[in-house]
This record gives sequence, C-alpha cells and structure tokens, in this order.
Amino acid sequence: MDVSPFTKAEIEYLTAQRIGRLATVAPDGVPQNNPVGLFYNDTLGTIDIHGLNLGATRKFRNVLTNSHVALVVDDVVSVEPWAVRGIEIRGVAEALKGAERRSRSMSRQVIRIHPRRIISWNVDPAHSGMEGRDVTESPRVA
Amino acid sequence: MDVSPFTKAEIEYLTAQRIGRLATVAPDGVPQNNPVGLFYNDTLGTIDIHGLNLGATRKFRNVLTNSHVALVVDDVVSVEPWAVRGIEIRGVAEALKGAERRSRSMSRQVIRIHPRRIISWNVDPAHSGMEGRDVTESPRVA
Repeated sequence: MDVSPFTKAEIEYLTAQRIGRLATVAPDGVPQNNPVGLFYNDTLGTIDIHGLNLGATRKFRNVLTNSHVALVVDDVVSVEPWAVRGIEIRGVAEALKGAERRSRSMSRQVIRIHPRRIISWNVDPAHSGMEGRDVTESPRVA
Repeated sequence: MDVSPFTKAEIEYLTAQRIGRLATVAPDGVPQNNPVGLFYNDTLGTIDIHGLNLGATRKFRNVLTNSHVALVVDDVVSVEPWAVRGIEIRGVAEALKGAERRSRSMSRQVIRIHPRRIISWNVDPAHSGMEGRDVTESPRVA
C-alpha cells in the first residue's frame, strides 16, 4: 500500500521478528496471552496472524466476541548493558475464516489486526526511547 | 514454601527467563500487553512483577479495576527445526503499593499474580507437548 500505519523502521523490525505475543479477552473479561507468528500485510497495512487450526482456538473465539487485542513484538538486544526494543500494537481485530493464503503453510483462518495505537521503543536507530501515537482513519505516510 | 503451584521444571524455567509479557485489561475491555521483569516468589507461590515507577503505569491501574491478567513467558529454542517452549499463567493479580523489596533495584509497587490456570509447553525435558491445569486453592506439591 502507498501509505502504512507503520514507519519503515517498524516494518523492518516486524518483518525480522519471528513471533509476537497476542492478548485477547474472553467474554467474562479474562485475558489470555499467546505466542503467535505474525505477518505484516503491506496491502492492507494490517498485522495478520495465521496458525495451524487457528479457527478452533480460544483466541479466535475471543476475537469474535471482543475485537480488541494487543500484540507485543519485542526482544532483548543486550543484557549488559540492558537494552530492549519492541512495538506494542493495540487494535481492532477481525477473525476471518476464508482469507487468502500467502503461502501453503499458512491457514485460511486469520486474526487480522487493524492498528489503532502503536507504541514503539528503540526500534528505529534514528530515535531512541519510547514513542506512542494513535492511528487515525487516514493512515500516515510511511 | 513447601508447596508450589508450579513444578520444579517450571520454576527453573521461570527463574532463568529475564522477561515475560503481561496482558491486562482496561475498564472498557481493551487489553494491553507489556514486556515485564518477573520474579517467582517462593514464599507465596506467586509471580511478582516489579518495575520502575510501576504504580504510575496503566497496567497497574488496569489491575486495580480488573484483577484478571495473563502472563506468558516463552522463547524460541531452535529455528531449524522449529522448537519453542513456554508457560502461560492466567491468574488474579493484586496491585500492591507497599510491598517488601527483594533488592534495592526493585520497586515497592508490585503486581502480584496468583495463578489460577497454568499452561506449559516443552519446559520440562521429561514431558514434551502442551499441558494445562487449573490451580486449586490448596496448591499441589511441587
């Protein structure tokens, strides 16, 4: 897409990381938190979560009843001195059952996250520290 | 403590890992997901989250209004072949403001997680695969 809710540095980071952790909320208000594989969808500007038999999981059912999710992708760059970096993406998710597969190993069931707030820290070498911003309906230019 | 909600292998894993990701839920049902340092409290059988100025954070305030949290501690052991391990701890948390510090670098503000359900995968070399169990009021012997 011509515009993206993510910066170039954030997209590079999201593409390089293998897993994130996805928080979803059950109808009774109880959260769960699961490691997931993630794919930046450059056509839609979303983060897509695929997975084996994803439609049968509780996180998929959670999204059907409460579409609010929070995905965090982060890692420890150095222990001594302590240095961390990452991105938290809060957003509204769709639980899709017939999505197009990007590869044969991916499921047709997808949790597709539309970012509403992005908080990143130390992901862009040009900017240290934490930065948070809301994502408006017209995405900003990457 | 004589009894623990965690197995010996789980305690060793939790102690060795530096960070986990904590999901909390705001009053409007919106989750957030944050990397946190964690400490197994062997006196109480809880997981304690400390942090710099923790009492001023939204996750601390979230716990004050919705005590349900989910902490996931996991890592990628091998990429080729793909091998992962971890523990998800769903529980009820207290947001404490005057807790005893275990070291000078820790805050007196603590999010203390009492496990209610523990799901672990590939953490115990003696057992492969995923195992989930509820934690009853009388903790099982470790």
